[in-house]
Amino acid sequence: MEGIKDRVAIIGMGCTKFGELWDKSAEDMLVDSCFEAIEDAGIEPKDIKAGWFGTVMSGFSGQMLTHALKLEYIPVSRLENFCATATDAFMNACYAVAAGIYDIVIASGVEKLKDTGFAGLGTAGGGIPSSMVEPPVPPPVQFALVATRYAHHYGLSMEELKTALAKIAVKNHHNGTLNPRAHFRREITVEQVLNAPMIAWPLGLFDCCGVSDGAAAAIVTTPEIARKLKDDYVLVKGVRLVCGGKQGTLHDWYDFVHFDENVTASKMAYEEAGIKDPRKELDLAIVHDCFSITEMLIYEDLQFSPRGKAKEDIDAGTFTLEGELPVNTDGGLKCFGHPIGASGLRMLYEVYKQLQGKAEQRQLKKADIGLTHNLGGMPGSFTCAVAILGRRD
Amino acid sequence: MEGIKDRVAIIGMGCTKFGELWDKSAEDMLVDSCFEAIEDAGIEPKDIKAGWFGTVMSGFSGQMLTHALKLEYIPVSRLENFCATATDAFMNACYAVAAGIYDIVIASGVEKLKDTGFAGLGTAGGGIPSSMVEPPVPPPVQFALVATRYAHHYGLSMEELKTALAKIAVKNHHNGTLNPRAHFRREITVEQVLNAPMIAWPLGLFDCCGVSDGAAAAIVTTPEIARKLKDDYVLVKGVRLVCGGKQGTLHDWYDFVHFDENVTASKMAYEEAGIKDPRKELDLAIVHDCFSITEMLIYEDLQFSPRGKAKEDIDAGTFTLEGELPVNTDGGLKCFGHPIGASGLRMLYEVYKQLQGKAEQRQLKKADIGLTHNLGGMPGSFTCAVAILGRRD
Repeated sequence: MEGIKDRVAIIGMGCTKFGELWDKSAEDMLVDSCFEAIEDAGIEPKDIKAGWFGTVMSGFSGQMLTHALKLEYIPVSRLENFCATATDAFMNACYAVAAGIYDIVIASGVEKLKDTGFAGLGTAGGGIPSSMVEPPVPPPVQFALVATRYAHHYGLSMEELKTALAKIAVKNHHNGTLNPRAHFRREITVEQVLNAPMIAWPLGLFDCCGVSDGAAAAIVTTPEIARKLKDDYVLVKGVRLVCGGKQGTLHDWYDFVHFDENVTASKMAYEEAGIKDPRKELDLAIVHDCFSITEMLIYEDLQFSPRGKAKEDIDAGTFTLEGELPVNTDGGLKCFGHPIGASGLRMLYEVYKQLQGKAEQRQLKKADIGLTHNLGGMPGSFTCAVAILGRRD
Repeated sequence: MEGIKDRVAIIGMGCTKFGELWDKSAEDMLVDSCFEAIEDAGIEPKDIKAGWFGTVMSGFSGQMLTHALKLEYIPVSRLENFCATATDAFMNACYAVAAGIYDIVIASGVEKLKDTGFAGLGTAGGGIPSSMVEPPVPPPVQFALVATRYAHHYGLSMEELKTALAKIAVKNHHNGTLNPRAHFRREITVEQVLNAPMIAWPLGLFDCCGVSDGAAAAIVTTPEIARKLKDDYVLVKGVRLVCGGKQGTLHDWYDFVHFDENVTASKMAYEEAGIKDPRKELDLAIVHDCFSITEMLIYEDLQFSPRGKAKEDIDAGTFTLEGELPVNTDGGLKCFGHPIGASGLRMLYEVYKQLQGKAEQRQLKKADIGLTHNLGGMPGSFTCAVAILGRRD
């Protein structure tokens, strides 16, 4: 079989400001993000032959996209895959173009969480089918178990771990100050993180991402068409998704210091993209920092840091804007919050802009190849999606 | 662009008995249908490289499928597209194989409606985003408007229309008696239909489909691999889906005697499959008879009957098992009920078995090419999916 590498291109992207958008409906955000993408691509709405639409709880069916955009009678598939929803929509859009079925398509994701009664990610039992039901454990508690186990396993004191985690939050908040689309835009200090109200020990307020509204979209086409339409299109080098197959969480085999889904999905995507040394070859990564400890594990699971050595790389500033491998240059979930069905495409938006040299104050000196990483579900049962984009040769 | 024709094959299918399956969970039904498909294909679960999973309200995310089948770390996309959900899952599975990303994949759909508090399709307003909200009108009422308008438009008396509709219900019930997987399995008479309790005039009890549980699945691969694995694989000739793009229902432009989505999706699929005269070229069709009037409109929208002439074809027995173009040979939604996320693949199951000559008592003499048709949503705002399968040459 052949991978997706260099067979599909992105020619336009859009992304709303994320935040408490009390005056915007889900449809408003779809319109804003999709028309930014359409304008960026230099096409007309009528050029869009099909759509892939991701949302978790802000709508049903592909009709929501055709209605919002007033696109009549085009095919729109609606995807939902927990927090990896938008990347799932993007991936299936890529497959349809790679199969030669459609020449220009749109992938879009949206979530409206404010003003809907949604008060943050719920407990693991809520609405999840019987085989996945465990005693309800809210996400911060589940990831807190990861944090304490990680410190124990690698012989870190809790103070050492908490300081390392705080540095991740400080880094992402700094990046967010440079991004007009971010929800939270202020600097924080390590002291503030360590002294913040506790959510689930050892994770405090600044170790957890917020809840916000947002939408993002991408126009996907063939490299041949991309070449005709713009100079700075971006190529898809790899996109892979895996779902955990074990039964529920918290079993005795679970080590809580790595997530198999991260490892498997990233390996598949690296192989597809032809990447052998991710730390050296990637210029940036936008990853799923739902909690600071999640970003720390991702460093190791995605081979940015050796096992147990993430703290050393954090201390060395490896993942800052000026570091060897900048991570969450846009501010991450920490500063965007997590409108579930939009986050994956919001991540792709940052990589796309960085690769085009259009990331303004956050622009990296070298940005030829970048990665996005999405993680949905709970420890023991994740959907993980990894996408890799590259500048045209 | 090139279509899907002859680029993808089905080598295995599974389908549970549909009905009030009080002792089966959604996962149980996934296991039953998927393992029937796996066994039919002559493969092992480990040969499945990726999955596309459809459900409307019986689960979240692709993890439900990997959990049920104990398939660890494979990609599974979860689709939802109202009543066309399962065909959407099947279509995206076809694209991934046609793109050469995966060689053997599974498409599956499930819905558990009994024992969950679900009491039939709700009102149009329920859970549907703001731009689609109309004064809540339950589906039988919306389709009743279609029935009365159809009679008025074509100058039929209500008695003539009701008798034509009753003949559709009688036909589908007869076919259901021949199918051990159907939920309702008894003959009914035109008198019974006409004298049945009224649901929404002129649609009585037997003009409406029931509510049931069920699941179905397909193993999709390349024709090259199919050829090695079995003699009677089936080729995908076309699969297309469209979403309505107008705002809501019941506008003054709406004629209520045809559905544009049916016309558009079927034309696209006919073009993809190279079909010029559907009535002559198709050997059977399994269509979305959520209400008897829906099946009557489908005859015309899909070019089985000329506009306004469906009644003549019904009277002539055109769509019976012995007729010129048998429709709903398996009993249709009328006898299967409509477990929403499963129906599209249940339809494909019947066409697959007919093309293989394995439809037992319902077997048609000639079954070389067959169609399935799914319709989700409401008049004014449908998702319509059409798939066409053909015997190997």
